[in-house]
Amino acid sequence: MAESPVIPIVGGTGALGAGLALRWARAGAPITIGSRSAERAEEAAARLRGEVPGAEVEGLLNEEAVARAEIVFLTVPFRAQSENLNNLREALQPGQILVDCTVPLAAAVSGKATRSLGVWQGSAAQQAQEMVPDGVTVVAALHTVGAPTLADAGTELDEDVPVCGDRKADKARVAQLIELIPGLRAVNAGPLEMARIVEQLTPLLISVNSRYKAHAGIRITGLPDDNHWQ
Amino acid sequence: MAESPVIPIVGGTGALGAGLALRWARAGAPITIGSRSAERAEEAAARLRGEVPGAEVEGLLNEEAVARAEIVFLTVPFRAQSENLNNLREALQPGQILVDCTVPLAAAVSGKATRSLGVWQGSAAQQAQEMVPDGVTVVAALHTVGAPTLADAGTELDEDVPVCGDRKADKARVAQLIELIPGLRAVNAGPLEMARIVEQLTPLLISVNSRYKAHAGIRITGLPDDNHWQ
Repeated sequence: MAESPVIPIVGGTGALGAGLALRWARAGAPITIGSRSAERAEEAAARLRGEVPGAEVEGLLNEEAVARAEIVFLTVPFRAQSENLNNLREALQPGQILVDCTVPLAAAVSGKATRSLGVWQGSAAQQAQEMVPDGVTVVAALHTVGAPTLADAGTELDEDVPVCGDRKADKARVAQLIELIPGLRAVNAGPLEMARIVEQLTPLLISVNSRYKAHAGIRITGLPDDNHWQ
Repeated sequence: MAESPVIPIVGGTGALGAGLALRWARAGAPITIGSRSAERAEEAAARLRGEVPGAEVEGLLNEEAVARAEIVFLTVPFRAQSENLNNLREALQPGQILVDCTVPLAAAVSGKATRSLGVWQGSAAQQAQEMVPDGVTVVAALHTVGAPTLADAGTELDEDVPVCGDRKADKARVAQLIELIPGLRAVNAGPLEMARIVEQLTPLLISVNSRYKAHAGIRITGLPDDNHWQ
């Protein structure tokens, strides 16, 4: 797995970011945990090195973390998305791919987690595409993989990750990183505008979870077995 | 299966209605195919009796079909939903449950099938709830089960059906009818307002289908095995 590129996680000290970091570290992928505080980033990295012996993890300021690789994951809550993207305006470079995992839950404004906010651009991912520097491409993914499930190292994952983006080649590169995590399959959900729908899967699963006392995920049935991304 | 109530399908000559009728008939459930034309309804019923020997199927005008049972399925395209509900105003009676399967695809106004229309009430199902007579309850379901898959008797179904409604008891009764069809599991997706999200699963699956040349469905993973509806 030494050939795997570093995976920078902006907001890597949050619930989703930390869960992904744990799973990638266990899969042997080198990662960089980004945070607004270099100290908290390094604390989280040290904790992860303790949990996963041999893990290649460093903790950095978000702005420094995104310089580490071409594909960057943004895992902050919707409330913090704009602020984070503003802070990254000088740091992100043309040619980079930003994977937006943001879900515009109404919880961001103290509403219910089973409801969502209407985003002017159509989705949080499309808002991100508007905010990133020219030449940076946004791909939307990882909305439906629950942070508690990721964090529970004893739980085997077995679910799909719908991926939205305007170029299949970009999505294929992101899919490769997602599928480093055992039990996740990346599914091509169409252009970035489909994030309008995919981001809504999270409040749907939250609604199901509250009824079943479960940690539900999504599977798309009926797809052919061959590797769609090749 | 003789104790199963009759299942009236408004729009039962359309693609979704006919597919459901085929599956229910094969499961031994008695059904009534409704149409705006009594002649076309009876033709469809006769065809189904030919396909499924022993099937208990009759074809009637929609207005007559809905009088046959307490739970009625509305399977017309969004373009025809309002007209059908207007026509049923005198026919539907308090205490009945209308299962709305409508999806507000942009295709209704010659837009893309991977896009949807904004419905003022929030979803097609909520629009239906506003239009039915007082005392009639709307439950939303069966948006993601593809008509071609249902119609292909050789294909075994293996997918979930998210069900939205404001009372669990109503949803449980609808779930029982849905689960008469082998390979379908009804999942409690929350109150009727969640139809805003569930109706969007259809354009998402249409987008996936076009990329994979597939007939995709939805599975919710991570749910407990016990019967949620009891």
